[in-house]
Amino acid sequence: MIQVMVNGIPGNMGKIVAETCAARGLFVVPYSLTGEIIVENESEVAGKTIQLLKPSNREERIGEVLKQYPDVICIDYTHPSAVNDNADFYVRHGIPFVMGTTGGDREALAKLVADKNHPSVIAPNMAKQIVAFQAMIDFLSKEFPTAFSGYTLSVTESHQKTKADTSGTAKAVVADFAKMGLDCSEEKIVKVRTEAEQMEKMHVPEEYLGGHAFHTYALDSADGTVHFEFQHNVCGRKIYAEGTVDAVCFLAEQIKNGSAKPFNMMDVLRSGKMR
Amino acid sequence: MIQVMVNGIPGNMGKIVAETCAARGLFVVPYSLTGEIIVENESEVAGKTIQLLKPSNREERIGEVLKQYPDVICIDYTHPSAVNDNADFYVRHGIPFVMGTTGGDREALAKLVADKNHPSVIAPNMAKQIVAFQAMIDFLSKEFPTAFSGYTLSVTESHQKTKADTSGTAKAVVADFAKMGLDCSEEKIVKVRTEAEQMEKMHVPEEYLGGHAFHTYALDSADGTVHFEFQHNVCGRKIYAEGTVDAVCFLAEQIKNGSAKPFNMMDVLRSGKMR
Repeated sequence: MIQVMVNGIPGNMGKIVAETCAARGLFVVPYSLTGEIIVENESEVAGKTIQLLKPSNREERIGEVLKQYPDVICIDYTHPSAVNDNADFYVRHGIPFVMGTTGGDREALAKLVADKNHPSVIAPNMAKQIVAFQAMIDFLSKEFPTAFSGYTLSVTESHQKTKADTSGTAKAVVADFAKMGLDCSEEKIVKVRTEAEQMEKMHVPEEYLGGHAFHTYALDSADGTVHFEFQHNVCGRKIYAEGTVDAVCFLAEQIKNGSAKPFNMMDVLRSGKMR
Repeated sequence: MIQVMVNGIPGNMGKIVAETCAARGLFVVPYSLTGEIIVENESEVAGKTIQLLKPSNREERIGEVLKQYPDVICIDYTHPSAVNDNADFYVRHGIPFVMGTTGGDREALAKLVADKNHPSVIAPNMAKQIVAFQAMIDFLSKEFPTAFSGYTLSVTESHQKTKADTSGTAKAVVADFAKMGLDCSEEKIVKVRTEAEQMEKMHVPEEYLGGHAFHTYALDSADGTVHFEFQHNVCGRKIYAEGTVDAVCFLAEQIKNGSAKPFNMMDVLRSGKMR
């Protein structure tokens, strides 16, 4: 049974990931790294009591965790400001990890695991279906760069109203289409941030107004007779939790096979070919 | 200037293709192969009078065509029953051709051009954007076969009410998704054939009720929180005419470079990489 320590509890994402791990048959160890700012020392998640370790006491307590769970893999859903410090901690203690937290110094993070050849999966987007979609558009732009010559591209994305910036996924996909001569600069991406429009125009379910990521890419021929459309609409955070568990299972398998090293989500996706 | 003889005039597709050729700067020669059943001996297309050659007189008259237009390329939009006979004619007279007509004995057709290494583009679907889309889904199914495990696939297609059978494109795409474990057998593909539903549900413009090809593929996660959707909606036949002209231009370039041989639409698409 794969043992995981989900760090970032009692945060929302940490809790969802821990519950998803338990639901998919992984063993959630009763410890979690969290921030000094968290007042509690324990939290109830996935039907068990999780001990919360803070930066101030984690060095002295990690020994008892590793003694009980020597094969534990860490999952990190903490805070951008903790990314590099936590990665250092995992490497120092020889704990394989899946980094789902975004932000921090990504270059330093990549260098750290590369230098130590540390077993890890680092991905800014754990939704493997969306990573696959992006790879598919990348394939299109590389293989058939003139297929959509003369077409116009329009992009609409909807996220919870608290998200101020433009979707990073939309920007990445637009960059691929730009290689095909389809211009849709960042300022032309339509951002839907009002709840009325989200329900009426994008058909976001009311219960997910507070947390969703809807994207529509439309390609239209100059004469208007041909219309292509690609959508990826995500409600809540379940897809990221599921992708994270896939990453953990992949990493555990690599460790078992003696072939563990730093990976990304594309490696996890490609591994499906071998099954 | 590329010289083309568009065969299948006065058929609808032949006319559209001839007009598209003229609009894109190709020279449409004033001759066209047509069926014995056609009563007229000439037809007005793209602002000129086209002589119609029938199977009964084309052998004696092709000499005058080739004498005036030695570099002519034939485009075939005739009839399934004429496919193999016409291809024999092109090969016998050394005329490069683009075969846009579907049906006939495709194996015999492929063997003929392969045996003679005859300059040609043969494609059951001349819409290069749709060929690119299919290649993209094929890439997805081969590279990331488990990316959408547990998802359900639903497919809806709408065509003019006179089309009795299920869309061949939909069936081909479904076959690719099936490789990913997504089951949507042919009988589960929803065929929309009533005009009311086409306008209300599929948003087909009224003027194209008589000729359109709309396809929607939807992928939904088991818990309903993730929805992917791919659409390709074609009104009229312009896309096929444009793709045909692309194929002719590609073939002309290969002939000029001394590298002409039998090609398909994927070759035409890939050639975009070299530009």
